[in-house]
Amino acid sequence: MKSIVNNINGMLRLFASFIMIASAYSCQGMQEQEITAEKQTELRDKPNFVVIFADDLGYGDLSSYGHPTIRTPYLDQMAHEGQKWTNFYVGASVCTPSRAALMTGRLPVRSGMASSKVRVLFPDSHNGLPQSEVTIAEQMKKAGYATAAIGKWHLGHKEEYLPTSHGFDSYFGIPYSNDMDNTVPFRSMEGYMQFWKSEARKDINTFNVPLMRDTKIIERPANQHTITKRYTEEAVKFINDKKDSPFFLYLAHNLPHVPLFTSEEFQGTSPRGLYGDVVEEIDHSVGQVLKAIKDNGLAENTIVVFTSDNGPWLIMNEEGGSAGLLRNGKGSTWEGGMREPCIFWAPGRIQPGIVTDLGTTMDLFTTFSNIVDVPVPDDREMDGVDLAPVLFHGQNSPRNEMFYYRGDKLYAARVGDYKAHYITQDAYGPEATEHEVPLLYNLNVDPSEKYDISKENPDVIAKINAAVKTHNEKMIKAPDLLKDRGE
Amino acid sequence: MKSIVNNINGMLRLFASFIMIASAYSCQGMQEQEITAEKQTELRDKPNFVVIFADDLGYGDLSSYGHPTIRTPYLDQMAHEGQKWTNFYVGASVCTPSRAALMTGRLPVRSGMASSKVRVLFPDSHNGLPQSEVTIAEQMKKAGYATAAIGKWHLGHKEEYLPTSHGFDSYFGIPYSNDMDNTVPFRSMEGYMQFWKSEARKDINTFNVPLMRDTKIIERPANQHTITKRYTEEAVKFINDKKDSPFFLYLAHNLPHVPLFTSEEFQGTSPRGLYGDVVEEIDHSVGQVLKAIKDNGLAENTIVVFTSDNGPWLIMNEEGGSAGLLRNGKGSTWEGGMREPCIFWAPGRIQPGIVTDLGTTMDLFTTFSNIVDVPVPDDREMDGVDLAPVLFHGQNSPRNEMFYYRGDKLYAARVGDYKAHYITQDAYGPEATEHEVPLLYNLNVDPSEKYDISKENPDVIAKINAAVKTHNEKMIKAPDLLKDRGE
Repeated sequence: MKSIVNNINGMLRLFASFIMIASAYSCQGMQEQEITAEKQTELRDKPNFVVIFADDLGYGDLSSYGHPTIRTPYLDQMAHEGQKWTNFYVGASVCTPSRAALMTGRLPVRSGMASSKVRVLFPDSHNGLPQSEVTIAEQMKKAGYATAAIGKWHLGHKEEYLPTSHGFDSYFGIPYSNDMDNTVPFRSMEGYMQFWKSEARKDINTFNVPLMRDTKIIERPANQHTITKRYTEEAVKFINDKKDSPFFLYLAHNLPHVPLFTSEEFQGTSPRGLYGDVVEEIDHSVGQVLKAIKDNGLAENTIVVFTSDNGPWLIMNEEGGSAGLLRNGKGSTWEGGMREPCIFWAPGRIQPGIVTDLGTTMDLFTTFSNIVDVPVPDDREMDGVDLAPVLFHGQNSPRNEMFYYRGDKLYAARVGDYKAHYITQDAYGPEATEHEVPLLYNLNVDPSEKYDISKENPDVIAKINAAVKTHNEKMIKAPDLLKDRGE
Repeated sequence: MKSIVNNINGMLRLFASFIMIASAYSCQGMQEQEITAEKQTELRDKPNFVVIFADDLGYGDLSSYGHPTIRTPYLDQMAHEGQKWTNFYVGASVCTPSRAALMTGRLPVRSGMASSKVRVLFPDSHNGLPQSEVTIAEQMKKAGYATAAIGKWHLGHKEEYLPTSHGFDSYFGIPYSNDMDNTVPFRSMEGYMQFWKSEARKDINTFNVPLMRDTKIIERPANQHTITKRYTEEAVKFINDKKDSPFFLYLAHNLPHVPLFTSEEFQGTSPRGLYGDVVEEIDHSVGQVLKAIKDNGLAENTIVVFTSDNGPWLIMNEEGGSAGLLRNGKGSTWEGGMREPCIFWAPGRIQPGIVTDLGTTMDLFTTFSNIVDVPVPDDREMDGVDLAPVLFHGQNSPRNEMFYYRGDKLYAARVGDYKAHYITQDAYGPEATEHEVPLLYNLNVDPSEKYDISKENPDVIAKINAAVKTHNEKMIKAPDLLKDRGE
């Protein structure tokens, strides 16, 4: 955790320079170190939790993660005040399974939300996240939290699968991807790509997606121009309303998934073009949410997490995002598909710094459950670890492994710095290639997965093989619930 | 300059939160806005200048520019307090011409420091930067500044070409690249690459490079393990010694150019491996320099600039850096070769923020000359603009154009957001390809130069062609001074 220590020094120096300036205005001298300890004692037992989840945002799409022309001052500030994670993963490289992983703290292959036939849920899908799964929201309810889901759900649009059936007191949002219910008929990937070159993509009426409140459709097609703004207003209202009780807010934006829509204020404002406009509006939304938290005096007792469901949708060209220096994007088990920007924020509570240790969205379930003292289910295999040592104590992450699934198949595994690819396949490229000797990369040295070092490191491969064997022995895959669709 | 405005808001918010904390310790209320104005009046007429120049550091090699595992807390802090430029260029994609551009404020093709036969100066080169050129150090001398060059020079190692013959009061450093004077004989690029796989690269004695003080060799081979540390000590000593007179310090690290060496404290400490160790030692050096400036009470009257001479040397694999999301690297006219991290810092004087406008190392000559009120030479074509409007007044950059040369040939040109490639060639790849219709990219929308939009934008190409025509009409190329070498 040297990174954190270094960065704390940086923070202290910054702090010192502010104090220096402040001193000139007759501020008394003080011990910086006292603040944290002093504040810690004031913290309530049950902090609020806010999870902000973007859609298809790439590792390289924030200014603080290296984008030259997408301006994200609120997220950058959040990263500066909080923890910026650089080895943080999602549970899958496409929407539905990634969201299932976050909600359940389990690999989606355990809940039936992963399939090698149909990658995500569609408006004509029969199923959704089963009732037998325990969600992070249900955990929070057990601790007496107020809970709300705002935004994209994508774990089933029928009543029994909606957020209100999964531990959330309320729901406001589009229940699946914003490009679905498309009024332009196409039957192939080729047809779909052709559609994205047409002007129809710019018209919200092309996408007949419903906007729901709880279990009712209140608008169809949803006006996607104002959707980010309205999600934000709902989030701020929820925070204001629930300021006196502990709350869990899940704010899952439908954007920057294509089709790209912004409200008028952001249209044509980013040097990055429309994709930049959309990300900058989400950044502004984050600023509004943090402001609401601060305005209600909850800044030091609210843990905010920002991340995205999977990497950039590269086939969308300029209307898709960037994985920065990472290889490939959404849909693949290369790093660009599953490693995401991730920021944890709770001033005075979470130690500021850059974290290069491993973490995943599945760890939120375990971490939050432990914080509120609700037992993690012990009747099933869980995939999360408790990140508290990193968040609050500047210690190493207990996570040392990461398993990369595509559909219901294990493609790659990471142990420590090293990742072995047993199967490789581009997001939408040719067929899968199986490797008798897996490709091996040291991800910390070679984040772009350019230099295969399998030949020189049979011992490392043996170690990863052993971890995979243990993993497989405990793996009970649920039946594929995504494949059933159509009338 | 909306980016700056946004970021200032961010800064103010951060500041406000510190003040809030400070208030709890009986600090009186205050107006944040007053600080800058108040401090401005205290500034001396002649600020100090420090230019820190890394070698072969890529656009993606700092944490604040997106690297996941290279930890650069001092540079990140500097970027947070200062201006982080994201469209900042060097004058060439290899060492000698890039340094000539920085020193003279002119494209290297004007000074003879660019060649299509020999790309840089070697220990057996006959020539160096001609006396007829006016350097930025000479400009500072005219204004009564103390001047020092510390580190890599690479503009001629004979006495008449050394820093002490070009406006610097003193010089301490290795006069060319740290891989030169190599004791392992090789005659081809292939032989050179083979050498880099041998263990000999890890021994400082393999590289018989001289360390000079002024015009004398004081150590040979230079102990490269301690070179970054010793450059830093010299820099700190210079700042301490000259604290009462205005000074110009040019601190040009030999690293992270291969061979990679670190002092003992940094060896094996970075998750990024040896390359990370080296960059993190340079980051630490930046911290030491800024600390010396602060300790001497000069923080608000010293303008510090950090950048690098060219992009990462990608053929060095894990021992080379990363251009992040930019295409290609050192040696090429793709963005990865010539766009660099660049941070301007002078707390209270330079407006904090992210700058997406254009700037180049050649602009330092013009900007600094104007600040100290020394006329820019009017007997020759200059290539710099004055960046003061951006640095001090939150205005747009006066620079709208960038010309990309490889050797003495124009390969590409940027006007506004758009870059046209007339000739493309990988750094060390196959021959050059000339394009009858240039490839066209919108760099702000498509920083990775992936989507050629030439067909849709003949008007943009016509505009860039016109800018190139004007540029060519005024271009007087100097005779190639790099080609003469050998006994």
